[in-house]
Amino acid sequence: MADNNKKMVEDITSMEEDFAKWYTDIVKKAELIEYTSVKGCMVIRPYGYAIWENMQKILDGMFKDSGHENVCMPMFIPESLLQKEKDHVEGFAPEVAWVTHGGSEKLEERLCVRPTSETLFCEHYANIVHSWRDLPKLYNQWVSVVRWEKTTRPFLRSREFLWQEGHTIHATAEQADEETIKMLNIYAEFCEKYLAMPVVKGRKTDSDKFAGAVATYAIEALMHDGKALQAGTSHYFGDGFAKAFGIQYTSKENKLEYPHQTSWGVSTRLIGGIIMTHGDDNGLVLPPAVAPIQAVILPIAQHKPGVLDKAYEVRDILKAAGIRVKVDDSDQSAGWKFSEYEMKGVPVRIELGPRDIENGQCVLVSRHNREKSFAQLDDIVAAVQAKLTEVHDGLYQKALANREKRTYRVKAMDEIVPLLEQKGDGLVYAMWCGEEECEDKVKEQTGVGSRCIPFEQEELSDVCVCCGKPAKHMVCWGKAY
Amino acid sequence: MADNNKKMVEDITSMEEDFAKWYTDIVKKAELIEYTSVKGCMVIRPYGYAIWENMQKILDGMFKDSGHENVCMPMFIPESLLQKEKDHVEGFAPEVAWVTHGGSEKLEERLCVRPTSETLFCEHYANIVHSWRDLPKLYNQWVSVVRWEKTTRPFLRSREFLWQEGHTIHATAEQADEETIKMLNIYAEFCEKYLAMPVVKGRKTDSDKFAGAVATYAIEALMHDGKALQAGTSHYFGDGFAKAFGIQYTSKENKLEYPHQTSWGVSTRLIGGIIMTHGDDNGLVLPPAVAPIQAVILPIAQHKPGVLDKAYEVRDILKAAGIRVKVDDSDQSAGWKFSEYEMKGVPVRIELGPRDIENGQCVLVSRHNREKSFAQLDDIVAAVQAKLTEVHDGLYQKALANREKRTYRVKAMDEIVPLLEQKGDGLVYAMWCGEEECEDKVKEQTGVGSRCIPFEQEELSDVCVCCGKPAKHMVCWGKAY
Repeated sequence: MADNNKKMVEDITSMEEDFAKWYTDIVKKAELIEYTSVKGCMVIRPYGYAIWENMQKILDGMFKDSGHENVCMPMFIPESLLQKEKDHVEGFAPEVAWVTHGGSEKLEERLCVRPTSETLFCEHYANIVHSWRDLPKLYNQWVSVVRWEKTTRPFLRSREFLWQEGHTIHATAEQADEETIKMLNIYAEFCEKYLAMPVVKGRKTDSDKFAGAVATYAIEALMHDGKALQAGTSHYFGDGFAKAFGIQYTSKENKLEYPHQTSWGVSTRLIGGIIMTHGDDNGLVLPPAVAPIQAVILPIAQHKPGVLDKAYEVRDILKAAGIRVKVDDSDQSAGWKFSEYEMKGVPVRIELGPRDIENGQCVLVSRHNREKSFAQLDDIVAAVQAKLTEVHDGLYQKALANREKRTYRVKAMDEIVPLLEQKGDGLVYAMWCGEEECEDKVKEQTGVGSRCIPFEQEELSDVCVCCGKPAKHMVCWGKAY
Repeated sequence: MADNNKKMVEDITSMEEDFAKWYTDIVKKAELIEYTSVKGCMVIRPYGYAIWENMQKILDGMFKDSGHENVCMPMFIPESLLQKEKDHVEGFAPEVAWVTHGGSEKLEERLCVRPTSETLFCEHYANIVHSWRDLPKLYNQWVSVVRWEKTTRPFLRSREFLWQEGHTIHATAEQADEETIKMLNIYAEFCEKYLAMPVVKGRKTDSDKFAGAVATYAIEALMHDGKALQAGTSHYFGDGFAKAFGIQYTSKENKLEYPHQTSWGVSTRLIGGIIMTHGDDNGLVLPPAVAPIQAVILPIAQHKPGVLDKAYEVRDILKAAGIRVKVDDSDQSAGWKFSEYEMKGVPVRIELGPRDIENGQCVLVSRHNREKSFAQLDDIVAAVQAKLTEVHDGLYQKALANREKRTYRVKAMDEIVPLLEQKGDGLVYAMWCGEEECEDKVKEQTGVGSRCIPFEQEELSDVCVCCGKPAKHMVCWGKAY
């Protein structure tokens, strides 16, 4: 038993002391990941992978319900294929991993390991799209991609990461544009309804667009430390890729036309997002919808007759109701178990001892605020379900309150630095003229970059926060992961 | 519409004429895959991927029910890590793809794209296994792997393929051995119960073992053309990998011990297996358990009032009962639709016309034998479920009959060639002394290689079919994919 005690909470760095260290402590101690000998490549351990599986299941259902189909493209892109769309290759070539040999033979052409798969989908669409009858294609794939980053952090920026990438192709620009926004809305709904993570929806400025896109939309979430996390993106390509790859279709009117495309993706980065949105100094706090264990039953004085039997009975009842539940009947101490499941972020703890059983009740404890309540054992399913809803709502409200507290509206650039110093990092809402020069200047002089142009615009003033010329948009600025 | 007519059945090569061509016709025309510009790397299209998703869902459930957890390892293996186990590197190094550059920089050490992940799991186990309390670890992952094959065929032998690889580590040799056999049995159950594909379970001869294994077990299925397909393998490693990677644990008795390991896998090769087991000259024939569409409703004279409404009503009833069902209400001709869904291998066709509706009935047609029957619309769920069971059983019996017809028991080597010439390729059961020399000689002189030493042994004679010395085992020989 002694070797397990190293997991006690004393070992976590506090968030206030060092947020970055707190984060890496959690990913290791909650057993989400383990490092490997290749920098930026990690093992996603069972508990971490189960969170991803739960995310996948929900998202995959949302994609399929909205008419999308899964496919699987190869992982290799020939160098010549990557180069077909000029902006795209410029954006990605500096950070791809190159395969040069197969066995002992040098390849005739280098292959890169996909950093994203637009080029592969375009090659495929050129093969299978010929008539208006072939459109739209609403495809998605669940794969890993590789980007050879210099600095890496588990989930947030790793050289290999898991994601889904949707790639759709449509007859008209309107349909493609509609798809781009539809998927952004699905991502926002997923983050808010299942991850309890409020997001700002908006459009990226031109300097921050995806390589090859006409427009990039994003959802931005605010982390506990006041930094922003780009949680998902959706790109509208117009017919740029179609022209570069020679994808054409015959319309109903028998004319040869270029189709319009989109792509959109979210990744295991979302796991980093939920850690930094909900976690605390006792460890992970998981939103119930994606928690591998939603409720853990801790039998108190489990050696006493009837305790374990009752615990198993309650487990079976909850399980039958579709709740992911576990009994920890190990010989660890109650204190160890409390710490362990707090560290693992299990939303609800159920304490069940001899006295409770006598009274036909048990104790429910919410992970996020440690509030205790009694529940009747003969109504346990409804009680746990209500508690899970309460935890989800509590997490969402807490995250929203943090974001609101840390959202600052400013009219002049020189307000920004003092505000952040006084109140801490956060989202800065300010007007912008639309010129890249001003965007760069704000970043240089205040440290906050443009995160997005929120769909929900406010007229904070009519002039640019930087140059004083007429403002075009309100921009959401922030420091970012 | 005209451009779709190329899908008509006339276009498929017949099995008798050219089985290999028939196979590639089907994978293309049933829209399972599309080729890419990289040899041996294919796009798995929605219909093909949906088959794989159904397989995954069933297998993943079987793995989890037997206590396994999913994880995800990186795709890259440093050259030095691959080299740690001598036999393993010898087996795989000649066929791996090497990454030598990240962006524009040459890597300090080459990385191979995983051909299989024993070395990565071992590195991880060395990090996380310390005490008997940490054992066993029963891990699995769903990923793609790369093997730089010279000759490639969709699903059967591609340079990249999707699979699952289980990797487990146990305190004792007995437990690891038990796991190896348990997983082989799960594979066999999956093939027979869900893919309607009978298999022979057995042990590989030493010359055919997995690189680094103490023993390799396999399931072998017989394809329609009489060739064998290795459909799944399960390997027992003993403590060889543990020793090579320095994985040790402290036992209950406080002694330092080496743990014992296994690995096991099945891949998208199984899709090739079901094509070649059940397919016919009209196209694919899918076992109901993994068919993306289990029943297709074809409305007859759909322009007549009430026909489409009834079709949608029947669809909704079947869907609610958990049956994967589709209505084809397109403006294609009935003939086109019949061909299309035969090509796609949909197990049950439901024909529904005005006269049927008047009589409160519809026509059910089984894909595999084209048998028609009437079903009452007010009992449609039970009728379709019964038909699906009937199709599964029919497929299994047909495949089993083909295998039995093509299983030959011989006592002398010179019987083999004339037998295969007269009756066609198949499985040859014959005794073997256990010497590699005889194994090689049988292969050279008759063209059939050792597939496995079946668990169900028969005493066909007491001497080796090749050298005449005392026999040790009955071997199942055959030509293989």
